[in-house]
Amino acid sequence: MPLSSVAANASEQEIPYYQSVGNECAMFEQAFQQRLPLLLKGPTGCGKTRFVSHMAAKLGKPLFTVSCHDDLTAADLTGRYLLQGGETRWVDGPLTRAVREGGICYLDEVVEARKDVTVVLHPLTDDRRMLPLERTGELLEAPDDFMLVVSYNPGYQHILKSLKPSTRQRFVAMSFDFPPPAVERDIVARESGLAPERCAALVNLAASLRAMKGQDLEEGVSTRLLVYCATLIGTGMPILDAARATLVEPLSDDADVQEGLMEAIHATFG
Amino acid sequence: MPLSSVAANASEQEIPYYQSVGNECAMFEQAFQQRLPLLLKGPTGCGKTRFVSHMAAKLGKPLFTVSCHDDLTAADLTGRYLLQGGETRWVDGPLTRAVREGGICYLDEVVEARKDVTVVLHPLTDDRRMLPLERTGELLEAPDDFMLVVSYNPGYQHILKSLKPSTRQRFVAMSFDFPPPAVERDIVARESGLAPERCAALVNLAASLRAMKGQDLEEGVSTRLLVYCATLIGTGMPILDAARATLVEPLSDDADVQEGLMEAIHATFG
Amino acid sequence: MPLSSVAANASEQEIPYYQSVGNECAMFEQAFQQRLPLLLKGPTGCGKTRFVSHMAAKLGKPLFTVSCHDDLTAADLTGRYLLQGGETRWVDGPLTRAVREGGICYLDEVVEARKDVTVVLHPLTDDRRMLPLERTGELLEAPDDFMLVVSYNPGYQHILKSLKPSTRQRFVAMSFDFPPPAVERDIVARESGLAPERCAALVNLAASLRAMKGQDLEEGVSTRLLVYCATLIGTGMPILDAARATLVEPLSDDADVQEGLMEAIHATFG
Amino acid sequence: MPLSSVAANASEQEIPYYQSVGNECAMFEQAFQQRLPLLLKGPTGCGKTRFVSHMAAKLGKPLFTVSCHDDLTAADLTGRYLLQGGETRWVDGPLTRAVREGGICYLDEVVEARKDVTVVLHPLTDDRRMLPLERTGELLEAPDDFMLVVSYNPGYQHILKSLKPSTRQRFVAMSFDFPPPAVERDIVARESGLAPERCAALVNLAASLRAMKGQDLEEGVSTRLLVYCATLIGTGMPILDAARATLVEPLSDDADVQEGLMEAIHATFG
Amino acid sequence: MPLSSVAANASEQEIPYYQSVGNECAMFEQAFQQRLPLLLKGPTGCGKTRFVSHMAAKLGKPLFTVSCHDDLTAADLTGRYLLQGGETRWVDGPLTRAVREGGICYLDEVVEARKDVTVVLHPLTDDRRMLPLERTGELLEAPDDFMLVVSYNPGYQHILKSLKPSTRQRFVAMSFDFPPPAVERDIVARESGLAPERCAALVNLAASLRAMKGQDLEEGVSTRLLVYCATLIGTGMPILDAARATLVEPLSDDADVQEGLMEAIHATFG
Amino acid sequence: MPLSSVAANASEQEIPYYQSVGNECAMFEQAFQQRLPLLLKGPTGCGKTRFVSHMAAKLGKPLFTVSCHDDLTAADLTGRYLLQGGETRWVDGPLTRAVREGGICYLDEVVEARKDVTVVLHPLTDDRRMLPLERTGELLEAPDDFMLVVSYNPGYQHILKSLKPSTRQRFVAMSFDFPPPAVERDIVARESGLAPERCAALVNLAASLRAMKGQDLEEGVSTRLLVYCATLIGTGMPILDAARATLVEPLSDDADVQEGLMEAIHATFG
Repeated sequence: MPLSSVAANASEQEIPYYQSVGNECAMFEQAFQQRLPLLLKGPTGCGKTRFVSHMAAKLGKPLFTVSCHDDLTAADLTGRYLLQGGETRWVDGPLTRAVREGGICYLDEVVEARKDVTVVLHPLTDDRRMLPLERTGELLEAPDDFMLVVSYNPGYQHILKSLKPSTRQRFVAMSFDFPPPAVERDIVARESGLAPERCAALVNLAASLRAMKGQDLEEGVSTRLLVYCATLIGTGMPILDAARATLVEPLSDDADVQEGLMEAIHATFG
Repeated sequence: MPLSSVAANASEQEIPYYQSVGNECAMFEQAFQQRLPLLLKGPTGCGKTRFVSHMAAKLGKPLFTVSCHDDLTAADLTGRYLLQGGETRWVDGPLTRAVREGGICYLDEVVEARKDVTVVLHPLTDDRRMLPLERTGELLEAPDDFMLVVSYNPGYQHILKSLKPSTRQRFVAMSFDFPPPAVERDIVARESGLAPERCAALVNLAASLRAMKGQDLEEGVSTRLLVYCATLIGTGMPILDAARATLVEPLSDDADVQEGLMEAIHATFG
Repeated sequence: MPLSSVAANASEQEIPYYQSVGNECAMFEQAFQQRLPLLLKGPTGCGKTRFVSHMAAKLGKPLFTVSCHDDLTAADLTGRYLLQGGETRWVDGPLTRAVREGGICYLDEVVEARKDVTVVLHPLTDDRRMLPLERTGELLEAPDDFMLVVSYNPGYQHILKSLKPSTRQRFVAMSFDFPPPAVERDIVARESGLAPERCAALVNLAASLRAMKGQDLEEGVSTRLLVYCATLIGTGMPILDAARATLVEPLSDDADVQEGLMEAIHATFG
Repeated sequence: MPLSSVAANASEQEIPYYQSVGNECAMFEQAFQQRLPLLLKGPTGCGKTRFVSHMAAKLGKPLFTVSCHDDLTAADLTGRYLLQGGETRWVDGPLTRAVREGGICYLDEVVEARKDVTVVLHPLTDDRRMLPLERTGELLEAPDDFMLVVSYNPGYQHILKSLKPSTRQRFVAMSFDFPPPAVERDIVARESGLAPERCAALVNLAASLRAMKGQDLEEGVSTRLLVYCATLIGTGMPILDAARATLVEPLSDDADVQEGLMEAIHATFG
Repeated sequence: MPLSSVAANASEQEIPYYQSVGNECAMFEQAFQQRLPLLLKGPTGCGKTRFVSHMAAKLGKPLFTVSCHDDLTAADLTGRYLLQGGETRWVDGPLTRAVREGGICYLDEVVEARKDVTVVLHPLTDDRRMLPLERTGELLEAPDDFMLVVSYNPGYQHILKSLKPSTRQRFVAMSFDFPPPAVERDIVARESGLAPERCAALVNLAASLRAMKGQDLEEGVSTRLLVYCATLIGTGMPILDAARATLVEPLSDDADVQEGLMEAIHATFG
Repeated sequence: MPLSSVAANASEQEIPYYQSVGNECAMFEQAFQQRLPLLLKGPTGCGKTRFVSHMAAKLGKPLFTVSCHDDLTAADLTGRYLLQGGETRWVDGPLTRAVREGGICYLDEVVEARKDVTVVLHPLTDDRRMLPLERTGELLEAPDDFMLVVSYNPGYQHILKSLKPSTRQRFVAMSFDFPPPAVERDIVARESGLAPERCAALVNLAASLRAMKGQDLEEGVSTRLLVYCATLIGTGMPILDAARATLVEPLSDDADVQEGLMEAIHATFG
């Protein structure tokens, strides 16, 4: 029998590995205790999603994750009536489930969602902490162990896609960045199974590749791609082949940029 | 059994705290007595929603709050036929409920709603005070204790999103701003539980942060964020950490602006 | 039992007060007698809607009023099949009712409606005077006592929102403006209950405020707002407070414009 | 029992009055005999619709008129399945009826319709003369007495709204303009009941008003408006009042243009 | 009983007349034999549709023609579930019918169709030759006698409407143009019944009119319009009247361009 | 009985021919073994689709191919409730089938799909490897033998259509190009049946035609078109006729470009 949608009961699983690099765990915990909503900002693949999974498990709360997109509407979060077997049945969306059952609802890349999502978030993020469900006629009050977490990547934001101040100013906020070298080395080693000393070289390489961001690259290489690279190297694949497939091709289609990236790789791995 | 949608019967609850700073309470009361619709203008988080909750409770009237958004249509306010259990049933929207039962209907950020909302508001905001429901064939006359309140933030308005004069000129209007220092200090202290003398420093800080609006900041720091900051400080969190998470990160993603904000914070808290 | 949608039988009600200022009553009556459609042009709140109510009552005809908006379609005027109690039932829209039963159909701000509305109006506004209902297979012929009245505010029109000549040239047309001072004074006094001599000062003030239109104001102050102002003054509210809430805040969000308006008010009321 | 939609059986009615001004009647008749589709071009209110009604009656064929608009789709012309009384029933659109029963289908302002209308017209306007109804699985062959007539006003066309050559080149085409003075005088007199000699002055006036087109006026005054004016004059209304309401206000909202028009009227009627 | 939708069984009809002007018949036949899809390019009314009808009949295969337009979607080609008489029934679209039964599916002006049409064409136009029907769960393999033919007019193409290389490069392609004079003369004579020597003058005229294309005319006069002109001349209509209605008015609304065209006509027919 | 939609069980079919030119087979296999998603980049018709078919068959896994387009939504991939025979039945989409049954899901030209597709891909392309089906309430965990492969053509990408870094950085990536001459010669010979030595000339020609890309051609000639050309030559068609129909007309509508292409062809085949 399948698990229920996007919920994973924390008590049945181990705590996902997360290597803290600052006061982010304390801040998350205080926000949870004080029933304040939280906003995470940071680049692609720096560990925001993993951090939320980690904290949810640590607090022993179920996590409801929603990846937001252009067509995500309020109903996708709150629920809708579905026709099933001739019967009309209300099906809670992930936000409603989190409010009803308690737990953490995480809206990843929230600026991508359609604007009517805001209307659902506002009464949940002020002192009312309420979720009105117009369709069912319910007015749900969030329990003390409900927490709303949203994230976005400030590097993507443009004029049409940004949180309005009236929404932003409802959140306690934190900025994330890639972890410091020693931490990232351990993460890559742990996830890929490659020896830490071999991962250290990859992390050094990442620093020089990330320095190219803004000039030619939209986004620096993520920790995830370092893990991919280390994984392929671990299978015995030649380092340059693995690096091209994981640190060059996924970052750019431009021949000049790719050449620049390969030069940095050659400089590291010769 | 759940409460009915977005309505909260005032008689069953205490009056939400609101610290008056001018003649706004008298004006609201006279508009209510004279059956005139009211328009509230002001920046994010300055207390408009709280003010309306306060007045509704003081007048002993139920409050129906709707946060408006890009996809909010007239039917979201008036109601629609829903298929439930094989039966087609009309379900009143919050505006219809307020007209039918009496009470205050508050449309927050009304300029965000779709244009067909206007058509519903017009016959309710002239001497007719009527709500025609084409779908049910009803023509509801608003009772004497029905009041329409709308709000928006003039700082956001742009060419495509503004109230037409033919709509604006149907409302008695008031401008809101952040409360004076002593009042704001008391509000922050009351909401956060932090001692008033510690809150006073935060309110002073807010004044200097708000002075940066228009240059680098889209919107000044709200009273709500001051409450968040005081709340986190109250848990024992270092002041600078709390201030960064509540007064800097929620206001801007720009590194230079953030630095400017942090300088002002350092100047206050050293 | 509810009244039927947007129709108000004139014979059951008194004639709404309307103070004529030119030949508009005669023109309306002749257009009605000659079965010609009528177009009313004029600024916000100058009394177009009231005038139509007045004439409908005077002619003893029911009035079907529709406030047009961006999403108003032909079906909103003509009718649609609704599912009610498992049965599919045709429900006449307000235009169809006016054609079927006789009476005046008034489309307020017609340029706001969607373009398919035009297709419904064309056969009703030439010598055919017919309303084809494709969905029901009916071809209704308008009775002699059917009249179509439309209005718009020329000040709002822009390139995308205007009546095409092929539509405009189907109407007899009249321009409305604010009433002359003595008339407006009597209207304000009658509606607000304030003494006429006190209303006269408000009407004088309106003239100077209206002179600012086009420079800083999109639209001059309406008669309706003068009534609001007089009403609040009548409750004992200080004149400057009442004037700010009814003659300044509803007209503009701009601080400089508001100051200009307040100066004119001070000059009148000292 | 209601008449069938938009069809008027010519044999049951007299032939609508139409004053020919060139070879248009012969051209229409030859196109009908040779089974060629016809395109009429010309300004607002010059008599295109009346001409088609006249020819349909003269040829003894039913006429199916459709006023095209932005949201008119192929299904509006061909038909659709409707749910009626629990039964799904196919209902022919006006074009399908004309093909099935024979007769003239007239699409007024065809460039306004949505682009999928073209797909329906193409197989009807080449040597196939067929109307495929995908939904019912029928392939209707047009009878010899089916004729398609379309019209548009070249003055309105812009880049996004025009017939593609692949559509235009399927039609025999004719340009219409306002009738010569003597003919227009007789038309106005006949329609309004006003004496021809009084109408002659109106027709002279129309010439000078039409000369202003292109400079300040989007479109010259139509014959229809002259009839309106003559009708109001016939009721005893002052000429200048009638002229303002029918020849000035329907043409322009601009004060300067209105003044120019009134000057021309004063010059004629003093 | 009606024929089935858009299919015409070739064996029951004579072969439509088509005058070959190059190797187009051989190319079509080889493409059919080798199971390669075919793309026809060429101006309006030069005979592409007729050519496809001719080849379908010559090969003895049914022809399924679809005129593409802005709103044509994949489902219009493949089929959909329709509610008929309380039953949900799958109805094949023309493309599916051609794949299921064998035959030629011709998509006229394919660049006008919506982009999701491409997804249906791709697996049919590579070595897979398959049509997946997601809705019915079928994966149809095209029989050897299925052929896909598409066409467009290169003169219309603009940036938003063109075939992507990944689609274009799936077709064998041919360009069409108007037939050489002697051939066109015979076509016009055959279709209109006018004597060939009188048609020759029209064909000469067409050459000079076509030379004006690109300067003032979007598209040169089509063979179809020459047939129209000859047809009207054959009824005894004056040549200049017939030419104006078929060779001038359908080509342009511009007075100067029309005059230029009429001059060329006068030069030919005096 | 038809096969199930877009799935082809590899065990029942021979392995499609694919001529490897680098380490692409090893990379694909390692990505599959390590459960990493794969991104293929390259021009039209260079063999990406064939490569995926080949690898799926070699690994003995079913392949689910989806050609993405502007209107492809997440539901097209995951599935939807369909009304069939009065029953509401959930029908898995191709992605869901691949996750449920194991196998390779290949999204061709993924950048063309609508943005909500991203939300489905994200949880499948990080360490979660999960597919949440909100509509059915299921949370599917991908089996070890599930693999996601996506492709796009970097030459097409523009500002509005590109993969966001947060999506790109979830894939191991490889660039494809046309095969080297000897390999391409063998491919063309094998597919068309033409003798390899005659195919060699075509491959040489392709090199000079591809050199024109970027200047006048949007895309160089594909291997597929070379196969078409060889196929037609094999039927005895003159080489220049075959080349024009397969290597010139499908590449460009521009007369100058076509002439340039023909010159290159004449230079080769004289």
